[in-house]
Amino acid sequence: MTDGALRGPVHVVGSGLLGTSVGLACRRAGIDVLLSDRSSEHVRTASGLGAGRPYDAQDAPTVQLVVVAVPPDHLGAEVLAALSSGNAVVTDVGSIKGQPLAEVRAAGADLRRYVGSHPMAGSERSGPLAASALLFEGRPWAVSPHEDADPAAVALVTALVEVCGGVPVTLAPDQHDLAVARTSHLPHLMASLVAGRLANAPGEHLALSGQGVRDVTRVAAGDPALWEQIITANAGAVLALLDEVQERLTSLRHAVAGGERADLAALLGEGVTGTRAIPGKHGGPVRPTASVYVAVPDHPGELARLFADAGEIGVNIEDIHIDHDPGRPVGQVELLVDVDRAATLADALEERGWALHQ
Amino acid sequence: MTDGALRGPVHVVGSGLLGTSVGLACRRAGIDVLLSDRSSEHVRTASGLGAGRPYDAQDAPTVQLVVVAVPPDHLGAEVLAALSSGNAVVTDVGSIKGQPLAEVRAAGADLRRYVGSHPMAGSERSGPLAASALLFEGRPWAVSPHEDADPAAVALVTALVEVCGGVPVTLAPDQHDLAVARTSHLPHLMASLVAGRLANAPGEHLALSGQGVRDVTRVAAGDPALWEQIITANAGAVLALLDEVQERLTSLRHAVAGGERADLAALLGEGVTGTRAIPGKHGGPVRPTASVYVAVPDHPGELARLFADAGEIGVNIEDIHIDHDPGRPVGQVELLVDVDRAATLADALEERGWALHQ
Repeated sequence: MTDGALRGPVHVVGSGLLGTSVGLACRRAGIDVLLSDRSSEHVRTASGLGAGRPYDAQDAPTVQLVVVAVPPDHLGAEVLAALSSGNAVVTDVGSIKGQPLAEVRAAGADLRRYVGSHPMAGSERSGPLAASALLFEGRPWAVSPHEDADPAAVALVTALVEVCGGVPVTLAPDQHDLAVARTSHLPHLMASLVAGRLANAPGEHLALSGQGVRDVTRVAAGDPALWEQIITANAGAVLALLDEVQERLTSLRHAVAGGERADLAALLGEGVTGTRAIPGKHGGPVRPTASVYVAVPDHPGELARLFADAGEIGVNIEDIHIDHDPGRPVGQVELLVDVDRAATLADALEERGWALHQ
Repeated sequence: MTDGALRGPVHVVGSGLLGTSVGLACRRAGIDVLLSDRSSEHVRTASGLGAGRPYDAQDAPTVQLVVVAVPPDHLGAEVLAALSSGNAVVTDVGSIKGQPLAEVRAAGADLRRYVGSHPMAGSERSGPLAASALLFEGRPWAVSPHEDADPAAVALVTALVEVCGGVPVTLAPDQHDLAVARTSHLPHLMASLVAGRLANAPGEHLALSGQGVRDVTRVAAGDPALWEQIITANAGAVLALLDEVQERLTSLRHAVAGGERADLAALLGEGVTGTRAIPGKHGGPVRPTASVYVAVPDHPGELARLFADAGEIGVNIEDIHIDHDPGRPVGQVELLVDVDRAATLADALEERGWALHQ
């Protein structure tokens, strides 16, 4: 069927953010890309951006790989259509993997040529204009072979991930769905519940909002129409976690109501352990970082000056937080750096006249 | 009793992060500061840093303001001790305001001289070595007068906030506690519940962790011993919110289990509304921002070059996120800027050779 090398043409079904980005990445690698979408305007826009050329039904026999990039509700139908329209290998880039597979299996299609996948990228923006060949650069991209998949088809989908700059993470469909329920869907729902409690809060209460509540609730700003489909399609795995949370929430409520401090501390300690389980940058264990806090006047140029100085000092900055301050012209910037380099950075910044905390 | 102007001496009870920072800020303003702590080493460290001089009982009659900066469990007792040791105005900087007030009231102390307060700063680090005169710069700082407080005492505590560079937010003690239950304590507990679900997750599942779960769970890394005291001291307000969450969680569970998509969408929409209710930088309404995504090689100097360019372009950066990528030498930096300035920044960065998404 294929030797696993991606030569194209690649047919992208759905020329939104993800599909157009896949097209751009493949074109960058010199691979022929054919674009389709329910919206002919999306196809025009995507091809205008250089993501490929419009698909024509006559192209079907030549296609090596079909990439289905449509919303969760339509994945199964589009994967089926792709499998029946030619002999190409078919993948999809949807947020859930079990449901489309079940739909394809139920329809009796040739499953050997279908291998689902899921790049961990791009969910907050939408449309072809938001696309980029770099969208997947360095991101985990799940490749989810089922038991009937042809190894060559798995190799071809893995080759697509590599052409796009993603980092392949092989996970069976059911394992993938359990993983994203835990690392994405549950966090999203809990963020929504916390954010929902702010919706009608008095302004004078919200005036005490700090960076913590902003971080906890940020993802809850995502598109409800998309997330409704994602959660619904992964209902089983999400429900199991909601049950776990409900049970722990009941324990928490009892601990707080009864002043059972040891129980409360145990729950909080479980959270600390959980934060440490998240893998670090570069996929390795979390490197211990330390924070250097700098007071930065809130106008253009000051951050530049700070980073120019940090660059000259030669300490790599792992992450940054800028504090949102009410009513003051000085912001606080938190620079996270390797714990062994924090003192060097702090001393050198102070020598250069920066006001540091700590 | 006082004309509301802060002249000192200020007696800081508890020379940890907050107390020592108050001392440093007051000393910066030329105000005499007296330091005490259960740990004489903390006092030595804090005075060595220039936060004040060690307190002696003979100083008591001269003190103008006592600032109690001890953990929640000890607030009431230390405020009482301060009220009975002289005629100074007394405040505290604890995370909850109702419980210490109730303890002081129950003991029959002179309440006119006590006005609690709470700076929204510094909860993740601890000890005098982490202190800074800039810790409170631009941060909201709740001033919580009760009905029996002397207006001059309120004015003096407000003056302390201003000397420390904080932004006073006046809220009655019960209102304060309701506010932080919603904007701090509930988000912390929900983050702990989400993080707790990661504690024993398989590594291959955690490999799909993105920025979303990192943001949702970040605060859950906070010190359980401190948070246990905070939650316990604000049990009433926290329980009311836990009940709200439990009710919504039950609705959510029903919606997911029953495929009630309209209900699920409504819950997700409530979350979107909540994220928009959080006040923006400078305390005003949230200015709409847009994101510019830039691919940045992951080594020292590149961020500096990016910010130098952004500075020269003259667009103020409101916030930054750096993506934690597994296994790749290129990171993705998200620059949040005023929505009207995003295109300018993006075009100018591209002209300077940066690889942008979108």
